[in-house]
Amino acid sequence: MNSPVVVRQAEQPPADAVVALEKYGVSTVHEAQGRCGLLAPYMRPIFSGATIAGPAVTVSVPPGDNLMIHVAVEVCRPGSILVVVPTSPCTDGYFGELLATSLRAYGVKGLVIDAGCRDVKSLTEMKFPVWSRAISSQGTVKATLGSVNVGVVCAGAFIEAGDVIVADDDGVIVVKRAVAQQVAAASEQRVRKEEATRERLARGELGLDIYGLRAKIKELGLEYL
Amino acid sequence: MNSPVVVRQAEQPPADAVVALEKYGVSTVHEAQGRCGLLAPYMRPIFSGATIAGPAVTVSVPPGDNLMIHVAVEVCRPGSILVVVPTSPCTDGYFGELLATSLRAYGVKGLVIDAGCRDVKSLTEMKFPVWSRAISSQGTVKATLGSVNVGVVCAGAFIEAGDVIVADDDGVIVVKRAVAQQVAAASEQRVRKEEATRERLARGELGLDIYGLRAKIKELGLEYL
Amino acid sequence: MNSPVVVRQAEQPPADAVVALEKYGVSTVHEAQGRCGLLAPYMRPIFSGATIAGPAVTVSVPPGDNLMIHVAVEVCRPGSILVVVPTSPCTDGYFGELLATSLRAYGVKGLVIDAGCRDVKSLTEMKFPVWSRAISSQGTVKATLGSVNVGVVCAGAFIEAGDVIVADDDGVIVVKRAVAQQVAAASEQRVRKEEATRERLARGELGLDIYGLRAKIKELGLEYL
Amino acid sequence: MNSPVVVRQAEQPPADAVVALEKYGVSTVHEAQGRCGLLAPYMRPIFSGATIAGPAVTVSVPPGDNLMIHVAVEVCRPGSILVVVPTSPCTDGYFGELLATSLRAYGVKGLVIDAGCRDVKSLTEMKFPVWSRAISSQGTVKATLGSVNVGVVCAGAFIEAGDVIVADDDGVIVVKRAVAQQVAAASEQRVRKEEATRERLARGELGLDIYGLRAKIKELGLEYL
Amino acid sequence: MNSPVVVRQAEQPPADAVVALEKYGVSTVHEAQGRCGLLAPYMRPIFSGATIAGPAVTVSVPPGDNLMIHVAVEVCRPGSILVVVPTSPCTDGYFGELLATSLRAYGVKGLVIDAGCRDVKSLTEMKFPVWSRAISSQGTVKATLGSVNVGVVCAGAFIEAGDVIVADDDGVIVVKRAVAQQVAAASEQRVRKEEATRERLARGELGLDIYGLRAKIKELGLEYL
Amino acid sequence: MNSPVVVRQAEQPPADAVVALEKYGVSTVHEAQGRCGLLAPYMRPIFSGATIAGPAVTVSVPPGDNLMIHVAVEVCRPGSILVVVPTSPCTDGYFGELLATSLRAYGVKGLVIDAGCRDVKSLTEMKFPVWSRAISSQGTVKATLGSVNVGVVCAGAFIEAGDVIVADDDGVIVVKRAVAQQVAAASEQRVRKEEATRERLARGELGLDIYGLRAKIKELGLEYL
Repeated sequence: MNSPVVVRQAEQPPADAVVALEKYGVSTVHEAQGRCGLLAPYMRPIFSGATIAGPAVTVSVPPGDNLMIHVAVEVCRPGSILVVVPTSPCTDGYFGELLATSLRAYGVKGLVIDAGCRDVKSLTEMKFPVWSRAISSQGTVKATLGSVNVGVVCAGAFIEAGDVIVADDDGVIVVKRAVAQQVAAASEQRVRKEEATRERLARGELGLDIYGLRAKIKELGLEYL
Repeated sequence: MNSPVVVRQAEQPPADAVVALEKYGVSTVHEAQGRCGLLAPYMRPIFSGATIAGPAVTVSVPPGDNLMIHVAVEVCRPGSILVVVPTSPCTDGYFGELLATSLRAYGVKGLVIDAGCRDVKSLTEMKFPVWSRAISSQGTVKATLGSVNVGVVCAGAFIEAGDVIVADDDGVIVVKRAVAQQVAAASEQRVRKEEATRERLARGELGLDIYGLRAKIKELGLEYL
Repeated sequence: MNSPVVVRQAEQPPADAVVALEKYGVSTVHEAQGRCGLLAPYMRPIFSGATIAGPAVTVSVPPGDNLMIHVAVEVCRPGSILVVVPTSPCTDGYFGELLATSLRAYGVKGLVIDAGCRDVKSLTEMKFPVWSRAISSQGTVKATLGSVNVGVVCAGAFIEAGDVIVADDDGVIVVKRAVAQQVAAASEQRVRKEEATRERLARGELGLDIYGLRAKIKELGLEYL
Repeated sequence: MNSPVVVRQAEQPPADAVVALEKYGVSTVHEAQGRCGLLAPYMRPIFSGATIAGPAVTVSVPPGDNLMIHVAVEVCRPGSILVVVPTSPCTDGYFGELLATSLRAYGVKGLVIDAGCRDVKSLTEMKFPVWSRAISSQGTVKATLGSVNVGVVCAGAFIEAGDVIVADDDGVIVVKRAVAQQVAAASEQRVRKEEATRERLARGELGLDIYGLRAKIKELGLEYL
Repeated sequence: MNSPVVVRQAEQPPADAVVALEKYGVSTVHEAQGRCGLLAPYMRPIFSGATIAGPAVTVSVPPGDNLMIHVAVEVCRPGSILVVVPTSPCTDGYFGELLATSLRAYGVKGLVIDAGCRDVKSLTEMKFPVWSRAISSQGTVKATLGSVNVGVVCAGAFIEAGDVIVADDDGVIVVKRAVAQQVAAASEQRVRKEEATRERLARGELGLDIYGLRAKIKELGLEYL
Repeated sequence: MNSPVVVRQAEQPPADAVVALEKYGVSTVHEAQGRCGLLAPYMRPIFSGATIAGPAVTVSVPPGDNLMIHVAVEVCRPGSILVVVPTSPCTDGYFGELLATSLRAYGVKGLVIDAGCRDVKSLTEMKFPVWSRAISSQGTVKATLGSVNVGVVCAGAFIEAGDVIVADDDGVIVVKRAVAQQVAAASEQRVRKEEATRERLARGELGLDIYGLRAKIKELGLEYL
């Protein structure tokens, strides 16, 4: 049963895995972990060029009410990424420059919010990265409780406190804490393999040959006219 | 009953209120006027960085027909913001570089259109700001009448001629003419208050404490684990 | 009846028409060819500022499966624009930096995809232009056939191999191969006419007068108050 | 400036106009009043076959909070139609069988809500008609104020207390109180005219001839092949 | 180049193929012709239970303007299905009871419209079937030309005059005239095969066995826990 | 890390809790478990009037590929509800009459699918209930693996094998297996309480008084005019 709660402590992922995942970026990590964990593509960065990774502090909020974001700041730690999800679809501007100032004072790396964000000009100047579903000035109240560090579904992905969030220009992905190390290693392998492939493709070799697809398309019965 | 009409004169808002509102921007004004008047977040600027405020010249147009925009130019005055709304949802490109050239010749500051806009590269080079629901080359005809300076609903907000439009990277808001002065004053107060809050947050104080929320969350029964 | 096929050769449009259409851009070409052929406005460039035109190589792909893009590379030629359409709506990231490297090696100018694209940071650095309906890291498989160079409906427009695609910041348009020359000529005429109009509008003349609309609005019964 | 308020009394439309408008239905009334006032087509009845008309009691509610609907019941009177609008887009289920029971006890004819409705099976059995943008069980809280009988924008239409709402299987329309009588008369005229037209069309006469369109299409230059 | 035109005559599909396709319905025909030709699923019937098939009379209309539907009636023949497509996205109610009365007088079987429809209660009583993207009372004008019996893209499918439209509760599909006979035959085969399969499934046999999928899932490496 | 797997056994919820939850329906259960677990309102029944509850058998499928549904049938048991989720958004018609025949042979109560369904006329005649995001004939292939009885996010809700699904005309909700008993009990309490409230409301008492809201709205500062 669902009642408002704040979980102060969440198990954290290995620090080196976080560093590695930030380096590889969303698309590589997505492939490396078996094509799962991606948030819906409507989650877009408010400015381009930022790449961040860090353990999630999750916040479940009522529609149009940002009281719990204020509660959540206190349980963030340096390197955290705040993940905010309304309990029903909402585009209100829960978050702006003042909250970013507060999060930055606590070392939080950025925000992922399945709702709206405002003060985008100031946030861009501050270089505080946000991935959101909307940009909206619509203000929120501080009247109703929600929960911090419980499991949430954000833009179609299930996220628990301490899971690793990776976000860049391609979008946002969650890597479960327990496999973060393993996914980081698989990402490294994938990057190496892609480097070799890139060179061959640049020289004019075809993916059909590099990936050995000619036999497959023949077997599947593709007809050339 | 609804018949095509052009209202040549509309009462104008106080000039100093317009100047002030332009300075404070959409999110501040929205909070200051009690969280109302915001246009839907699908209204986005075609380029970032512009902030404008001015009295609305409203235009109600049929879908796919921009005849009335040409009619409206004549009743604009320096500082006006043109607000164009189709009578049913439409993404056609009613507006491009030529109309912007014409509006600029009349001193119009920018366009808010609940439809499409085209020639975005040229408009960006001209620095003519437009907030629209779509970018689309789809051309329009000049066959059917509409109205100018009547009340319209634009992206969910009711706007009358002479109301103040404020638009920036966060979106677009309407301030009713009659309260423009009052909202400008309230915005000024809000900005001052936020400056103090920003400093405290930057030093690591929590919103929970600054806004006195600890008692409230305790009363509401939030449980910490 | 529909079975997987690759058409190796498609008739090509006149080279000089392609050069001309690229110069005029989407909005001008759209008006010049009688306001048809535009793709839906949800097709957006991943970076702004690019304008390309070229003959289409069309690819019909299953949802979530990019096998046929690899097949299509081989039938591209310098100057081609790849047009990729899933057989049902899909936002998966069919295309990224590696495929762009391969296409560039074959002289392909850019991609129009009614689905998702990823590696947008790399693609932007490579200056490989893409117009897509989504940005998404979601990976695809290589399991099922589709077709190359058959007629496709892309974002609401019917496109055949060898038709001319024009794409810029305003969107994407298709010009049927058979009328490319004629549309290029009409675009040239339109541009000249617009130059004269632009100057008159900049001096403060009204569209109402330039386009001779005063008689029409009077006849239609517009009332001025 | 916007602060929570309940307006107890609103001027009411002429009772006979309401009776007439209910008889003619949405599409006829829409044409009769000059094609304005229609709510967006996403507003759908939860069951088909109901037609209602009555003066609006308007309610502006926060997202996810139905406190003000309870407040509004008290100012309804027999024949009222309740019009509920969230201050930002929301699909929560603000309304169900219990509130319908309460409204029915006060003689309210039905509900128009730009949000969600639940208990649709019970409401259908009760024959309590609702037009909504969504069906959703998502519950709401009772924590924050809104306003009753102020002007609202509902599904794109501006509605004031005492305006006439007409709703049927085609959708929902608002007729401004001041013109209700006039629109009812124009609807009656339209219905009579349509009866004659219907008979002629049923006999095989063409709209082209009945509406005198042949000259127009010739003048506009339509070519027959 | 695009100019308004009415093509009076279109080649018609074999009558017996039309009869057969109507019998098999959309889902069977879709599979039988190789999974192509389906219109987007937002095209829904205004009442359930109708199944129709017939040759298309296509109409390209401007947004918010139904002049060309009146023009099209004259070129319909008994058994035709009218297919109406706006040149840009539009939900206006182009079509209602009067036009249905007119079409019925000409023997037209039904309407497929990638826009809005109104008078749904009357149309349901008349049993005149319509598949549309919206139900909307929003009226249209009669001011601008379009074309009849030219190729159109309707809800994502390319349709030419004389192609066979099949529509039922599952949606709408187009079968190209040239393959109508062949698709009808393939549909018949499919139906027979499905009857046998249905019986086996009803007895508790598994699709895994009937379709011989066990080897495949083993080869693909599915792991059972 | 994500690899294709079928979990044959899942812990099951208490049978009497399932029986009870089916009796109370979605809206009551939703309130009783603290307003969580609801699937997005785009999940609609293909026919109205059905209410079902049962333990979930979850299926994660690639877009446009229903191979794993065939795999899943074998692990269903009498009373199961099949929950199918594509790995990226898809409206294809994964499911029709044949699969329903197969599931019924295994005692499956119904289907919840975050994609498309077809053969709705036959399914309605069979009284096999389906909740889906779309109705679409678009066929699927059987080429790629997915997983059965792993955790999935379906229409915004996290569902694990053996969780209880409740579905009716109001939508679909998931009750976690571990709290099913407790939620059933809370639902019973809620129903009893509502019965009393319903009677009072029907007599004309106000929710303002029954729920004790008058003090609250006074404290919050609501102004009556």
